[in-house]
Amino acid sequence: MANTENNKAKEKMITPRAKDYSQWYLDIIAVADLAENGPVRGTMIIKPYGYTLWERIQTILNARFKEVGVQNAYFPMFIPEKFLKREEDHVEGFAPEVAVVTHAGGKKLEEPLIVRPTSETIIYDTFSNWIQSYRDLPLLINQWANVVRWEMRPRLFLRTTEFLWQEGHTVHETMEEADERARQMLDVYRDFAENVMAIPVVRGIKSESEKFAGAFRTYTIEAMMQDGKALQLATSHNLGTNFAKVFNVSFLGRDGEQHYGSQTSWGLSTRTIGGLVMAHSDDKGLVLPPRMASIQAIITTIGHGSDATNVEEKAREIMKALQDAGVRVEIDARELRPGEKFYEWEKKGVPIRIELGPKDVAKNAAVVVRRDTGEKQNIALDALASEITTLLETIQKDLYTTALERRVAHTKTADSWDDFTQAIKEGNFVLAHWCGDAEVEKQIKEETGATIRCIPFDQVQETGACIKSGRPSTGRVLFAKAY
Amino acid sequence: MANTENNKAKEKMITPRAKDYSQWYLDIIAVADLAENGPVRGTMIIKPYGYTLWERIQTILNARFKEVGVQNAYFPMFIPEKFLKREEDHVEGFAPEVAVVTHAGGKKLEEPLIVRPTSETIIYDTFSNWIQSYRDLPLLINQWANVVRWEMRPRLFLRTTEFLWQEGHTVHETMEEADERARQMLDVYRDFAENVMAIPVVRGIKSESEKFAGAFRTYTIEAMMQDGKALQLATSHNLGTNFAKVFNVSFLGRDGEQHYGSQTSWGLSTRTIGGLVMAHSDDKGLVLPPRMASIQAIITTIGHGSDATNVEEKAREIMKALQDAGVRVEIDARELRPGEKFYEWEKKGVPIRIELGPKDVAKNAAVVVRRDTGEKQNIALDALASEITTLLETIQKDLYTTALERRVAHTKTADSWDDFTQAIKEGNFVLAHWCGDAEVEKQIKEETGATIRCIPFDQVQETGACIKSGRPSTGRVLFAKAY
Repeated sequence: MANTENNKAKEKMITPRAKDYSQWYLDIIAVADLAENGPVRGTMIIKPYGYTLWERIQTILNARFKEVGVQNAYFPMFIPEKFLKREEDHVEGFAPEVAVVTHAGGKKLEEPLIVRPTSETIIYDTFSNWIQSYRDLPLLINQWANVVRWEMRPRLFLRTTEFLWQEGHTVHETMEEADERARQMLDVYRDFAENVMAIPVVRGIKSESEKFAGAFRTYTIEAMMQDGKALQLATSHNLGTNFAKVFNVSFLGRDGEQHYGSQTSWGLSTRTIGGLVMAHSDDKGLVLPPRMASIQAIITTIGHGSDATNVEEKAREIMKALQDAGVRVEIDARELRPGEKFYEWEKKGVPIRIELGPKDVAKNAAVVVRRDTGEKQNIALDALASEITTLLETIQKDLYTTALERRVAHTKTADSWDDFTQAIKEGNFVLAHWCGDAEVEKQIKEETGATIRCIPFDQVQETGACIKSGRPSTGRVLFAKAY
Repeated sequence: MANTENNKAKEKMITPRAKDYSQWYLDIIAVADLAENGPVRGTMIIKPYGYTLWERIQTILNARFKEVGVQNAYFPMFIPEKFLKREEDHVEGFAPEVAVVTHAGGKKLEEPLIVRPTSETIIYDTFSNWIQSYRDLPLLINQWANVVRWEMRPRLFLRTTEFLWQEGHTVHETMEEADERARQMLDVYRDFAENVMAIPVVRGIKSESEKFAGAFRTYTIEAMMQDGKALQLATSHNLGTNFAKVFNVSFLGRDGEQHYGSQTSWGLSTRTIGGLVMAHSDDKGLVLPPRMASIQAIITTIGHGSDATNVEEKAREIMKALQDAGVRVEIDARELRPGEKFYEWEKKGVPIRIELGPKDVAKNAAVVVRRDTGEKQNIALDALASEITTLLETIQKDLYTTALERRVAHTKTADSWDDFTQAIKEGNFVLAHWCGDAEVEKQIKEETGATIRCIPFDQVQETGACIKSGRPSTGRVLFAKAY
């Protein structure tokens, strides 16, 4: 690294992206102090700074869920084994990865308990009691919870045995209304991804092979990471009446007849934080979009002794002014060399650094540095609050634009198998024709590692030939390697 | 019930407190729609209205923890069995009630995993890596999590197999500092109990028999329920160096030597909601203190047809004015008979009902009804915002005062075994002398059902004879039957 201070720092070096992207990802998590492995393989300890990201996600999504009428509740973590077995596709999908409690209170249990991998079964068993007539609908429930899915290849945030998430579960009178809700919640996620996390996403429908176990249809938002791989940021499922039938979620309709409820479920997890890390960070550390940052601006004081008192007093004035303008700001007045302090906040991805020393105070100005571009500017102290507010918005937009431009540059169309495999190999999103055959989808995956990320909402209807089978297709689907 | 509307309602009747206090408690939870039993024995489903209470607790405590420097984090739920076994008292205390995962990912695990009953072991194993020198101290961490303790006699909120809580864990340089922190956090709980939940508490130290498994000393806040029984609302433990020694939580001190950290842990759980229910509610339903209520005032409209439009418009104006004054308010404009609406919000414990009909609008006034006393008053619409704000504060204070007066009236001193057993039988807190012998404490429990709730902070030093053994004692301790 070019920066002299960095070389002096004793902290772990960051492996450059170009050298080893996977190691770079783990290095960023380590140097930004976000998380570490737990003592049981596949588990994760979310450290305080990492947990602020989950808290931002909770705060913002909670407000948005409330706006669209959703209420929070909490359901038990232990699911009777027989519940999981009721929906055939569901058990097939989840049985291989569940954790099972066989003993409790010093005794062997009569029936083993499953630690929830997701809560459709236990929640819908309850819903069957809560719902009598159409007057009880729509029922719009969400819970924030931990879930467990045994992971063979764990990776911090992206794949952990236990993870935190929210899972929404709704019941509606009609299939149309359920589908509308599933799409509405996907749009809540899209809006959050794009306008809070600054990550552009492709919205679409999952292929039959990739959809949620037990769903009628799965909607997804897919983001491109810096290595060209896709990450599914959130999914929203139209469950149809699949679960309603096995858990008897039924209601007396307006027509006086008994009907099964049409349902949705939708979730976003701590996995999203992995996506956030990979979307914007660079070889110097984490880069956070301002709306996700628990600290949006850090005022780093420079100078010791008698000078310092003056500087610290001014720093507190600036902090107050910024707080009044709604900026989340802190002061770093530790007696360390300026470079050390700069380096620390750089690693932690704080969007703006405000450097303040005796000379700056004398000139009634501060040096303001953008984390994303490294750009420096002198700003008069009395203009700071308004300039910083504007700059945070600029950074937020620029991060989104950069990510979008990257995705556009790395999204290719392919019409021949050679072009397709080449484009996948080079780390692109590839729009290509597919015949709709799950067997062909599987072959493509085996030969290239690419999966169908989704059938995009904005798919253009056009006649084409499947990239693999040559059979007819009516539109391109999105292929990519994925996390 | 005297109220005609109530008799007509099809809902579950509430068993009067005087008839069957235990059933009354369960009835309140049912009619207020707070929670219900889960499919696995001892588990609980927290329904949306009940969950708002937990959200209030989280929001308020989170802010207070932050004020005293505590940061949130998240640690894995699965604890290697060997961790639990390291601290002798701790394993003895918790082993009988843990749930054990023996299979996961389709295989038998090499080492069984404990579902956390509390997280001292896994967190301190981690802390041992986080802490090198005194510069890393104090370390002040909290997590919001679910925990599992197998319950033989489950009861909604009060004793559930899985419950939600926060657990704080801190490390300090000295025993004095740890003790100060343990007391400081107890005071955060006391302040929350008294000033938010309107529940007066007795602060004190647990006897050796009642202290947390592995603690050096346990501090507690104890509240009196309406039946005179005690409920422990929260505890805060000075762990000394007990865990630090087994998990090697050590640091390089200012003196250049290696020292063990002095630790605390402290927690408050969904059990507290059971206490809230029992502290204030009456035979008509739940009674919530305004600071805990997600809906502080409900505007119930009266009248149908053309009148209704006018009334609803006025109701929205009032809602806006109240919201601007910081009141959490909603409108119930459903086309139901007024009595049905009144009854519903009464059951749900909403502190203030604002009745608004065509006649009220014509008179530019509304009928305002207090949930706690049933007192009605006419208030001019333009005075409503300020009057309601004041009334909410009055209700908050009055609930506290009523609970305090009840406790004072039901706190007795006893100097003979006969007086003691009689006072316990009649449902009192009893201050009595005890010789300090755990065996005697056990006998008292066996013969009367009463336990030592705490050695109160405000214990008066006085010479006396143990109520049971007659041996000398230097002060009275607090006895009561407890939940």
